Amino acid sequence: MKLTNVLKALVIASIALTPLANADDGKKYRWKLAETWGPNFPIFGDATKNMAKMVKEMSGGRLTIRIDSSNKHKSALGIFDFVKNGQYQMGHSASYYWKGKDINTLFFTTLPFGMTTSEQYAWFYHGGGMELMKEVYDQYGVMSFPGGNTGNQMGGWFRKEINSLDDLKGLKMRIPGFAGEVLAKLGAKPTNIPSGELYTSLERNTIDALEWVGPSLDLRMGFHKIAPYYYTGWHEPATELQFMVNQKAYDELPEDLQAILTIAMKTAAYDMYTQSTHESGKNLATIQQDFPNVKIRTFPAPVMAAIKKANAELLEEFAAKDEMSNKILTSIENYRKQARQWTNFSDRAYLDSLDEK
Amino acid sequence: MKLTNVLKALVIASIALTPLANADDGKKYRWKLAETWGPNFPIFGDATKNMAKMVKEMSGGRLTIRIDSSNKHKSALGIFDFVKNGQYQMGHSASYYWKGKDINTLFFTTLPFGMTTSEQYAWFYHGGGMELMKEVYDQYGVMSFPGGNTGNQMGGWFRKEINSLDDLKGLKMRIPGFAGEVLAKLGAKPTNIPSGELYTSLERNTIDALEWVGPSLDLRMGFHKIAPYYYTGWHEPATELQFMVNQKAYDELPEDLQAILTIAMKTAAYDMYTQSTHESGKNLATIQQDFPNVKIRTFPAPVMAAIKKANAELLEEFAAKDEMSNKILTSIENYRKQARQWTNFSDRAYLDSLDEK
Repeated sequence: MKLTNVLKALVIASIALTPLANADDGKKYRWKLAETWGPNFPIFGDATKNMAKMVKEMSGGRLTIRIDSSNKHKSALGIFDFVKNGQYQMGHSASYYWKGKDINTLFFTTLPFGMTTSEQYAWFYHGGGMELMKEVYDQYGVMSFPGGNTGNQMGGWFRKEINSLDDLKGLKMRIPGFAGEVLAKLGAKPTNIPSGELYTSLERNTIDALEWVGPSLDLRMGFHKIAPYYYTGWHEPATELQFMVNQKAYDELPEDLQAILTIAMKTAAYDMYTQSTHESGKNLATIQQDFPNVKIRTFPAPVMAAIKKANAELLEEFAAKDEMSNKILTSIENYRKQARQWTNFSDRAYLDSLDEK
Repeated sequence: MKLTNVLKALVIASIALTPLANADDGKKYRWKLAETWGPNFPIFGDATKNMAKMVKEMSGGRLTIRIDSSNKHKSALGIFDFVKNGQYQMGHSASYYWKGKDINTLFFTTLPFGMTTSEQYAWFYHGGGMELMKEVYDQYGVMSFPGGNTGNQMGGWFRKEINSLDDLKGLKMRIPGFAGEVLAKLGAKPTNIPSGELYTSLERNTIDALEWVGPSLDLRMGFHKIAPYYYTGWHEPATELQFMVNQKAYDELPEDLQAILTIAMKTAAYDMYTQSTHESGKNLATIQQDFPNVKIRTFPAPVMAAIKKANAELLEEFAAKDEMSNKILTSIENYRKQARQWTNFSDRAYLDSLDEK
């Protein structure tokens, strides 16, 4: 038997050993993921680690993903471009950060007065959300997936109580994005400030109020030490982070690794919501125990009504400007109405009937 | 080169092609799963199909799972024994069905006045729930995992309105298990009736009321045509189904297939909650549109208070009788209290502030 024949036999043997034609191709895939967050960022960073660990274990090491945090790639908001250009095969960030590139990426994270987390997952997976997100991202060669939910975000830390709309006038508040625009319509002065400067800005009255996330991530920021009022949320009822995958890199994976990657991302996203629920409950208990003077408040009804009205007007402007925006916003609003009926008669009616608040 | 050398070369080549020692062992695993449900049972049956499909795709066909519904194995409530004895490698059912075998299996599905779905997942994965469940099931050589959540179940369909505790006295209601025992303490006559006879029993006044699941599964049963009152839930706020795996069969799988199986079960469970949320919203809208006379009610506060008191007494009896029951119930109650604070200040405060009900 000649050496070439031996080699032929080896090739045939290697094919025979492959359980499915498109499964283990003998290749090892070494991917890189860029995330918006700094190293060891709690919860958000856990979601990427969780995803990469699941992929490694399920693929028996055939696909491994190195995670680069913002200290490494130096561009917290460059993730979209990294993935689009193929510099990184994957990214972890939030879709609403890309509204400057494409306004329609804005609607796949959360919306003020929008869906709760369970409603929004139902919209993504059964109400047309994934299909609409694909339509928006396809044109950039980027695949976008849910990347983990924070749950309902708190309305923020305030040094003074908000009793009427007048108290919003001139209020200097760190509240970025869409919600900031809503409050600006009511006379507030929204600003954005890097996270490292937030505590000092609030302490020195450079700002009067700020929103961050919720007890899960607020506790370690220390805001409860200098702002006695913690307001319940309206502006981000179900913030969903985002996994991004370069379409070309994905297409080059064997089918079993594609399935492993997709399911690991989905599970890591759900898992992050579960973790957020846990950490929020735990940290809220700590805040209440150690700082009993912190007062949790909801904006008075007339203030809520005015914010809601300003928000609806802003959304109408978006819908009027762009056909795809209109299509997405209509889908969200119709789905929210249908799902909310059930939420009201299930979890809400249940909680209300317990008479515990 | 002799033939034996060629064979040696083939063996070496096959080892070189195996990415990790414990990964693809070249074997194909053909498993069977027995489920409590009949064939094509919606949502519950979708959870097992979803799980098996993920396993097949992620393993490239190395692990496949055949699903036997109750028409095939003829023992809807024999699933625990099937898996324990190794007759089936896997099962899909609900933990509270096994309370006759071990009272402590009762607490891993849902409890009256217990946790909501998001709170309960947080307890399972971060609050010690999985560890307690393992402690209970280990002694049977069975692994137990969350198997999909229905969300908050409705309190049931009633032919007459419940205005006071007197209306519960003598009320013949199909409501099985723990919740039935609670209502019995208040003078109701709980019974269990096979699902196929429920509609006729209610129509012919053999029973006055019944509970099933919620809009997601109630719609196709047609109860809304003959019972005008649909009460909100208290007795199963977060019913979690169950995947079971025979420990020995699991131990024989290579590590990558173990990871694939575990993550597929976890994802299928989360996915079922998302699907339940969707189907409930959709079907509730259908009921409200086609049967506008259906009235959704919550039991009056004094009735709720009495049910809650009877429930607490029953739980105390359980805790007093069995040390492990006490340990599990204490864990659940402590966790529920901590998590509920957050639920009240997040989703509940948000929904209440919208003034939409």
